[in-house]
Amino acid sequence: MLNQSEIDRVCIILVRARDPNNIGAVARAMYDFGFDDLRLVNQYPVPLERARSAIDASHVLENAVEYRSVADAVAECTLVVGTTALGPRKREHPLFSLAGAGKFIRSELTAVSPGPARVGLLFGSEKTGLSNDELSYCNWLVTIPMHSAEGMRHASMNLGQAVAVCLYELVRDEAAPSLHQPLAGAPAADLERLTGLLAEVLETSEYSRRHPANFDQILVRRLVRSMGLDRSRSLAWTGILRQILWKLRKQDSTEGP
Amino acid sequence: MLNQSEIDRVCIILVRARDPNNIGAVARAMYDFGFDDLRLVNQYPVPLERARSAIDASHVLENAVEYRSVADAVAECTLVVGTTALGPRKREHPLFSLAGAGKFIRSELTAVSPGPARVGLLFGSEKTGLSNDELSYCNWLVTIPMHSAEGMRHASMNLGQAVAVCLYELVRDEAAPSLHQPLAGAPAADLERLTGLLAEVLETSEYSRRHPANFDQILVRRLVRSMGLDRSRSLAWTGILRQILWKLRKQDSTEGP
Repeated sequence: MLNQSEIDRVCIILVRARDPNNIGAVARAMYDFGFDDLRLVNQYPVPLERARSAIDASHVLENAVEYRSVADAVAECTLVVGTTALGPRKREHPLFSLAGAGKFIRSELTAVSPGPARVGLLFGSEKTGLSNDELSYCNWLVTIPMHSAEGMRHASMNLGQAVAVCLYELVRDEAAPSLHQPLAGAPAADLERLTGLLAEVLETSEYSRRHPANFDQILVRRLVRSMGLDRSRSLAWTGILRQILWKLRKQDSTEGP
Repeated sequence: MLNQSEIDRVCIILVRARDPNNIGAVARAMYDFGFDDLRLVNQYPVPLERARSAIDASHVLENAVEYRSVADAVAECTLVVGTTALGPRKREHPLFSLAGAGKFIRSELTAVSPGPARVGLLFGSEKTGLSNDELSYCNWLVTIPMHSAEGMRHASMNLGQAVAVCLYELVRDEAAPSLHQPLAGAPAADLERLTGLLAEVLETSEYSRRHPANFDQILVRRLVRSMGLDRSRSLAWTGILRQILWKLRKQDSTEGP
């Protein structure tokens, strides 16, 4: 997993993005995943003020820098990766799916030698993507694998969503799948006591007489184990079954001869 | 990787989402990744028409179904997964990071027995997330690991981006990292011819005389190999070096005694 100083060496470069809402959505995604270095390449000034006022992720937008050319924006990057939708265009670059690209970028950022890498991730305008000229600054390309109806040229993804998905892949941590697992820890002795109680309930309620095929010590034990109980829930069930048993026996003694 | 019939058994359930732009963004993300089953749970009718008219992913929105309760929306789901931001709330559910959850959901969807699973992914309102009552319908919870400044409660993610990231994780295909690799295939003989040509250029231009320490057959061979050339680029370089050699020799003969 990337640490913060590695994340800080990634910059997001938007080329010809002009819609303040899209730029704001990109800043929001960067903020959510801890990225801070946003660069904009436009021939004309971008209405950044409108994006700045609209959005939560204000410090990302405050620190955003505008450049006149891709060459300037990527100047100190040691790895420049362009994003592209899969289209009919003839490709001159190596192209990786996002999952594969994430692996390469992470290893570039975490490599000790030959010195700290700086990675630039280039996103083109929503309508046309990156031009061939803009792509020629890239070491290689990445695509987000998308669904495409047969024969149809798929439109590119929403810019904010595309950036969110790419940054998620970079910080993705496969090593920590389970963050909180309350469903663990009922001691086997508790479960065995519960099994005994359930068997008593089944007998007292005459379930065992009406469904003798279902009443078997092993079946009842399996039934309890399949409940996946933690300690507090096994105690809750113990209380429920005791109460049921008490009520059943009380009725028996009331109805009794 | 999930096939289309497995993807078709996933439904996205938005609880108390009321902003048509957010609903439209969710539909767009679903469309991009090939998902089709969108369900909305609201006590009041949602202004779906506004979302429908605004967005590309129209068939997802056309097929969207409105429900009055979470219970109705998840009724036939065999696995219900709630999404949550990491917060101070006491958790009663198992909680997984998205990478771990993706693995479990994929194995649920691809399992042959005990019959086709249907998976519901629940998203709460942007402001409050899912309530404890809504969470109680879930088998377990998933969170998208996000950056959080120390001590600050992190706001939840933009709804469209959160759905995009979750769906990306479900269809993520680690097995196919390289989609197109044009930089392969220059035969070693071509590279060796290029090495010889470069050595000639270095001698003719007197580079070898001025920098004898840098002029060594092994160094020149390594330099050429490090260019990572494919066949067409090795031929291009061969042409360039031949032309340079021709011009250098022409000058020599003009200047000659």
